[in-house]
Order: sequence, then structure tokens, then C-alpha cells
Amino acid sequence: MNLNKKLVVGIDIGGTNTEIGIVNEGGDILFKETISSRCTENFEEFIHILADKILEIIDNLGFKGMVNGIGLGAPNGNYYTGTVEFAPNLIWKGVLPFVAALKKASSLNVVMTNDANAAAFGEGVYGGAKGMKHYVVITLGTGLGSGIVCDGKLLYGHDGFAGELGHVIVQEEGGRKCGCGRYGCLETYVSAPGIVKTAIEFLNNLQDDSVLRNVSPTKMTSLDIAEAAQNNDKIAQMCFDFTAKKLAIALANLAAITSPEAIFLSGGLANSGNILFKPLINYYNQYVLAIFKGKTQILASQLKDNSTGLLGAAALAQYEL
Amino acid sequence: MNLNKKLVVGIDIGGTNTEIGIVNEGGDILFKETISSRCTENFEEFIHILADKILEIIDNLGFKGMVNGIGLGAPNGNYYTGTVEFAPNLIWKGVLPFVAALKKASSLNVVMTNDANAAAFGEGVYGGAKGMKHYVVITLGTGLGSGIVCDGKLLYGHDGFAGELGHVIVQEEGGRKCGCGRYGCLETYVSAPGIVKTAIEFLNNLQDDSVLRNVSPTKMTSLDIAEAAQNNDKIAQMCFDFTAKKLAIALANLAAITSPEAIFLSGGLANSGNILFKPLINYYNQYVLAIFKGKTQILASQLKDNSTGLLGAAALAQYEL
Repeated sequence: MNLNKKLVVGIDIGGTNTEIGIVNEGGDILFKETISSRCTENFEEFIHILADKILEIIDNLGFKGMVNGIGLGAPNGNYYTGTVEFAPNLIWKGVLPFVAALKKASSLNVVMTNDANAAAFGEGVYGGAKGMKHYVVITLGTGLGSGIVCDGKLLYGHDGFAGELGHVIVQEEGGRKCGCGRYGCLETYVSAPGIVKTAIEFLNNLQDDSVLRNVSPTKMTSLDIAEAAQNNDKIAQMCFDFTAKKLAIALANLAAITSPEAIFLSGGLANSGNILFKPLINYYNQYVLAIFKGKTQILASQLKDNSTGLLGAAALAQYEL
Repeated sequence: MNLNKKLVVGIDIGGTNTEIGIVNEGGDILFKETISSRCTENFEEFIHILADKILEIIDNLGFKGMVNGIGLGAPNGNYYTGTVEFAPNLIWKGVLPFVAALKKASSLNVVMTNDANAAAFGEGVYGGAKGMKHYVVITLGTGLGSGIVCDGKLLYGHDGFAGELGHVIVQEEGGRKCGCGRYGCLETYVSAPGIVKTAIEFLNNLQDDSVLRNVSPTKMTSLDIAEAAQNNDKIAQMCFDFTAKKLAIALANLAAITSPEAIFLSGGLANSGNILFKPLINYYNQYVLAIFKGKTQILASQLKDNSTGLLGAAALAQYEL
């Protein structure tokens, strides 16, 4: 274990829990603790609880003076403004000044970005994108997030919100209703709830036997579909094929725009392995423009899935502070 | 006229003609001359003719020692390698070492990029994007090109070919055949030949009167359609509405990925004015994700259309050398 001076605190703010970790330059999580993101409805109070916990951990481990700062990953976190803006899954509403408040309460440097961007930093600093200057990380969970790195820098756009690949419209006519209020967004097809919707549609429209017919539609998860597909269930495999095709076209289009060296997939669906990656890579090669063929690798994230958010936030601090 | 030390040579390599211009820091073209791009099938010989012409112009104008270098804009020009790769409209085939050869023949610094990227430099240095760090320039001609500027730098991707917005697939099923060999690319709908195809389809499928029925389908141009639309021809206006909608969705998707401050349109179709921009901006506002609403201006290029390529190449040299 490499206890150098470049320790950072990585914090992953989730709707339910907030993870706090002390991470070294090599990406080892030296210590990890979880607090509830719902322990108080008062945002200022939450920041004080969080800051006290961070300082307590640093003190207890004898790391005082060795910590370079804090990296925060949060839904709708804006790197430019240091605020979280209208995050639907957090109990505090409106525009939350996370960076300024935590800086004041902890007397440490603080930097923040959204969770998908943090995942991109994590992949670049500790994962499979080490040494790459042009790559993309796609997070497949309840939604589809993306962090795009161009020429070694995260693409934030002029307002800090660039990289919303999940909200690229992929179905102009008759697209699925999205949580954003529009229709046909990529994440309505390619996400955990997206593949469940696909399965329900296929089960309704097709006559084939399927173990998924034994699962209540309201309780079906993407994991049920993945397990069925791995056991050669035809409808479940069709769901992955359909999902892979939608994602492949979106990635081929993204490659035409940003021409990355690699695209990493992380999150639940990405753990499905070959049942997703095999059709995805086949369709990608079929749809990508000739000059980009064979240039972009499509890979699974090399960060441990249950620590992506925390390591990403730590990597942001490692990179920026 | 500002004859400062920062004079550059801008060169726009086209399939038919090559334009050579001496440009000052303010974007004034002090002198311009055209040579044929088809004067010799020998690439090395062409470079020597070009270099001699450049040096002759500099000498004749008394600008010796005042020229900072040469900027080249060329179809399929690669900024990283300094080569033009497999450009279908040039008479020299394969990989052409434009930068190295012209550097040697002229003893001047040379830098090159493709024509759409050059247009983006031109807009940033001399046009409407002055002072902007995040913007996109779309060139609408025989094809659809794009130059994307993020954080003040052109987005080249890891191989130098990023920014191929014209080859984003916008129609998954039943899309039009594209010159690239695939189906449903944006430029099959949004380009001069694209809108002509749309007009021919509408004329075949609809019964409405139209002045376009008097034009031979093989001779119809986008200008015919623009003129008819300006004279309230219903089918011609439907063509612009259809084209605007396809482009609007593509731009809304691009905004979700790169979040630019402005998107500039240049080239023939962009000169159609309100018959394109009015439905384009309406559809864009309808399709763009809520967090980006009202943040990205959609504007006409502020470079004179017949000098976009030359000014873009000059701006590249101005910026890089």
C-alpha cells in the first residue's frame, strides 16, 4: 500500500447513501464509510455532518496534513459552478452549493462533477483508460450517463452539462416516453428499465416460451433478463440483441463526432458480459463509418463496479487538485 | 488595412480550383489568386507549381519576411499527419503528404486541416464565434461537414477525423443510401443533393401544384427549391420544413453531447435565410433537452460565403503558427 502525500477523499453522493473513501494515487481505497443521504432534509446540516465525518476519518487514520482535497461525484453536479442543480433523486431541491459549503465546513479543497463524468475520471486515472487522451465512459444504470474525454480533458461544454448521451433522440417517430419529458431518448432503450420495457413488449407481441413469463412485469429486473439470456432464453437474448443494436448505432454516431480511442461501459447492464458485448461489437462494426472502422475499442470498465462512483470522485480530486 | 507582421497565406484546395490568399490579422484578404487543381496529375509537380506561385505573390507584393506561414484547408485533410487521405474529389489518389511537401518546396511553416474544421477556425478568428470557446460550424454543401470547437480547441479525436456529423445515422430503418456506403446518414437529407432528393420524393408522392414540376429532376438544384419556397410554393416549403426538422434533431443531439454556445451554418443551403432558419430554430427548441433550452444560438456564418475556405485556412495558420 502506497501511503504517499497524494491521498484524496472521494465522495459519491447517491439518492440513498453517500459513500466516503480515502484513496491513494494507485486507486486503492484505504478506508470507506457510508452515511445516509436522507439523514436530514436540511442541506446545510447534511454538509456539516458530512464534513465532520470526513475530518473524523482523517484524524482517526492519522492522515492529517496528508490529504490533498475532496472530490465529489453527484447527480447533476456541475463542475463549473460547483452546484448540484435540480437532481430528481436527492431530497434537497433546487440549486445546492455543494462545493462552496463543503469547502467552508471542512477547510479542504473541494472539486465536483456529475457521476458519469466522475466515472470517466476514474477510468482514466485508475482504470482501463490510463494513458488515453480520447475516450468515453458510458454508465448503464437506471439511466444512461456518459463522460467524454477529448485530448485529455473532460468535455463539459459551455455550461458544464455536456455529455448527455442518454438524451440523444434515437427514435424520431413513435419513440418511448423519457423521464426528461421527450420521446425516443437513448436511455429509454439502453438502461436497466429500458431493457425491461423491451422484454415486456417482446413478451406481449411474441408467442415464444420464455422463463420471463414467470416473472411479474412490475417486478422484472435487467438481471432477470440477463440470467435468462445466459440460459439461452430466446426472448431474453432478443432483448439484448435489440438493446445492443440501439447502443451500437448511438456509439457509431458518437465515434463519428468525437473519434475516441476506446469506449468503456460500466454499471449493471455492462456486467452482462458477452450477451451484451458480442452483439454490440458486431453491430458497431456494421454501423460505424469506414474511416473509423477498427479504430475504437469497446470495452468493459476496469473499475470495480461497486466502487466506480467513489473512485471516480477520488480521481477527479487526484487530477484537479 | 492593417499590414502588421501577422500576415498568413490561406490556401483552399478544391476539386477544381485552388485558391491562394494573403490574409491579415483582421481577416482582410489583401490579395487572392486562383490556380487549377487539375493542372497536373503529378502531385509533386502540383506542389512545386503551388509553392512557386505563393513565393511569387509574396515577392511581388513586397511581403517577404512578413508572412508567418501557410494554412491549408483540404477535403479529408488530417491535422495530425499533415496528409490528405483518399479524397474522392481530388485527381491525386491515396495518401498525399501536403504539409511536408509544401513546407519543403516553400521553406515556410505549413499547417493543414479539413475544410469544415478550417471553416470553424475562420468563424472563430474572423467571424461570429470570436471570443467563443465552445461552438460548432456546420458546412452545408454537396455534403454536410462540421467543425467542433470545445474549450477553445478544435475537436480532432484520436485519429484526426472527428467531427463527421454528416455521417451520423439519423434514419435506422429505410434510410437513404449515402456516398459512404451506409444508409440513413444525416447528409443524405441535409445537404444540397439531399433537399433535391426530398423534393423529388414529395413531387412523386403528392398531388399539389408546384413550380418545381417544371424543372427536370436531373437538373434541379437546391437553389431552385429555395427560390420556389421564397415564392410560397407549398411543396418547396415542405422540403425546407422536412430538412429543418432532420437537422434540428441532429443539432439537439449534438448539443446534448457537446453543449456549445452557438452553432453556425455556412454554405449554400445556409444562405436560404428564414425559409431554413425559422423552422430549424422552432424544431430545435421543440427537440432540445430542457437543461439546454435557450442556451445555444443557431446562427448563420458571419464569413463571406465565397471566402469561407480561404479565410478558414488562413485562420488556422493565424491560430497555430
